Amino acid sequence: MTGSTAAPFTADDYRARMERAVREAADAGLAGLLVAPGPDLAWLTGYAPPAATERLTLLVLVADRDPVLVVPALEAPDAAHAAGASAVTLRDWTDGKDPYALTAGLLGVSGRFGISDNAWAMHLLGLQSALPGTSYASLTEALPMLRAVKDPAELELLAAAGAAADATFEEIRNVRFGGRRECDVARDLAGLLRRFGHSQVDFTIVASGPNGASPHHEAGDRVIARGDMVVLDFGGLKDGYGSDTSRTVHVGEPTGEEREVHDLVREAQEAGFRAVRPGVPCQDVDRAARAVVAGAGYGEYFIHRTGHGIGVTTHEPPYVVEGEEQPLVPGMCFSVEPGVYLPGRFGVRIEDIVTVTEEGGRRLNNTTREMLIVE
Amino acid sequence: MTGSTAAPFTADDYRARMERAVREAADAGLAGLLVAPGPDLAWLTGYAPPAATERLTLLVLVADRDPVLVVPALEAPDAAHAAGASAVTLRDWTDGKDPYALTAGLLGVSGRFGISDNAWAMHLLGLQSALPGTSYASLTEALPMLRAVKDPAELELLAAAGAAADATFEEIRNVRFGGRRECDVARDLAGLLRRFGHSQVDFTIVASGPNGASPHHEAGDRVIARGDMVVLDFGGLKDGYGSDTSRTVHVGEPTGEEREVHDLVREAQEAGFRAVRPGVPCQDVDRAARAVVAGAGYGEYFIHRTGHGIGVTTHEPPYVVEGEEQPLVPGMCFSVEPGVYLPGRFGVRIEDIVTVTEEGGRRLNNTTREMLIVE
Repeated sequence: MTGSTAAPFTADDYRARMERAVREAADAGLAGLLVAPGPDLAWLTGYAPPAATERLTLLVLVADRDPVLVVPALEAPDAAHAAGASAVTLRDWTDGKDPYALTAGLLGVSGRFGISDNAWAMHLLGLQSALPGTSYASLTEALPMLRAVKDPAELELLAAAGAAADATFEEIRNVRFGGRRECDVARDLAGLLRRFGHSQVDFTIVASGPNGASPHHEAGDRVIARGDMVVLDFGGLKDGYGSDTSRTVHVGEPTGEEREVHDLVREAQEAGFRAVRPGVPCQDVDRAARAVVAGAGYGEYFIHRTGHGIGVTTHEPPYVVEGEEQPLVPGMCFSVEPGVYLPGRFGVRIEDIVTVTEEGGRRLNNTTREMLIVE
Repeated sequence: MTGSTAAPFTADDYRARMERAVREAADAGLAGLLVAPGPDLAWLTGYAPPAATERLTLLVLVADRDPVLVVPALEAPDAAHAAGASAVTLRDWTDGKDPYALTAGLLGVSGRFGISDNAWAMHLLGLQSALPGTSYASLTEALPMLRAVKDPAELELLAAAGAAADATFEEIRNVRFGGRRECDVARDLAGLLRRFGHSQVDFTIVASGPNGASPHHEAGDRVIARGDMVVLDFGGLKDGYGSDTSRTVHVGEPTGEEREVHDLVREAQEAGFRAVRPGVPCQDVDRAARAVVAGAGYGEYFIHRTGHGIGVTTHEPPYVVEGEEQPLVPGMCFSVEPGVYLPGRFGVRIEDIVTVTEEGGRRLNNTTREMLIVE
């Protein structure tokens, strides 16, 4: 890694994004934005340090001032190589100095600032202490739509990431499941995602039999057996943009009940997808999918929201969840992923990334949603 | 992953750690501790969710009450399998509900709480908003020594992780460097760390020629050439405990200046190591190493602190840095890693993990610190 994302954008692209962010911040009544390493920083500057750490790295965006990136001295050389580096001024600080005092000097003594959701609490506390006159709101609360509507170049990258995930599924359906451990199949998934162009693998869930009833079970030592349902949910970043898809396969012939639950989830996923069109509140997509599951008497076993946005990270606004009244806008991308989880028995989840078009929804994942029988 | 760390501790071990944490919090004037996914949570409960996310997971430790783990419903089954799960009460919450209100009910309306450094700002803001009468301090500020002094079982795990990193170096010194890209050697390093028992690889820095002058350069497309100095800095987690070592090698014969700078850094590392003994302030180890570099006229090129603690994560207190007056205590483990970075030319860093004993310091990395010539 060189400290830069693999996304094909220029310093001018990043400059335009930062200018828009400052405008939207002002419209939302914010004095500025404080951006931590992670998806916000990658999207605004192309700079992706290997990790967020105890050393403060923070992009400071304040109206009518040039963007400033506060960065630890030892990481400044890499930051200077980021694609958007020429659009920001670097202000480095050395170990033992106080980076909060440095940042405070850039913010002014009062005002309300948006701060990246995933900024470290330690850094927020440092700023609150250095500037008692300031207040803060998370970017998801203050500017939830900042990154939510993708432009055509971004949509193309998300579609390519989706196609790579689909190619991964087309290969994994042919590997042996029975008799191998979940983690062995997970390793196959990770290798395939990389082979199809992913630079980063974020998750490779292989949840077999009763493990499938735990939605965020990753992959363990359990040996997959004939008769198991297996939830596969995998994704990561390709050229700086995310993939995330789930399919549930069966080792050998399924029972009638397994088939019934799988068909139900497929129908719910279809209903969620069909609810997607401009102007519809996010929660209506959740309601559409949930109504199908609830109508069949399985409502209590659908224990998570229907979806989440995706872009330069694999979980971001908009969230497709009851209570989210944000209307859908063309260019938004999010998952539609209902599931049914029967404790101690099995689970089923089917997930596509869907983007909003003028006409409705367009799926970025297009492998079969029929239940596949694997070996 | 099953949501549990690979460390060989029992629920009783975790219960004892939580009890100690609550006692130390009270001694520090805190009403309790709020622990986010990451090293604090792994150390206190053995629970290691795959990632910290926008969904709140938080261990709440308050005096005279049983520990409670607030956890998203879809991750509750995995949390229930953590090694320390029987020592905590799980309180799950479902998407669309307010986890801050749930947590607020566990905290009481006022008081000062310690919170994990790496807790998301979004979650801290949610708590601050739900409970205006509370205040917060980062755990590094409030209880910097909570995890700093390792017990004998932990020291054994850290020594084993160090030995695995050493075994990795003994193999990597024999691979071809010249003509290959940094990222190719980095992949070799990652494979070796895993082969020698690491479950997680955190960094594999291969910084050749001028890239070596950027201390946190990872590994890029640069093709390593004959005549290059190459900084190697790698580590991760083995059985839940960290490794982190650096050596600087040379492709072919070095120049006199390269040899001189390498000898200087080796001497500085030795001086830092020799300064380690109980009662000595952390900053004295930094000063001892820095004095050697400065004395030779290279002070301005040693642009980072001398070291950082290591345990269930690879960066934690105590920090070996000017201004850190914390006295060393037997059982502490930290890196001693001076470096010299000549912009546009090359860098040298030599790093061992050192633990404090009654008699002085003991190195957990023991490969040669002479400059090795590689192919």
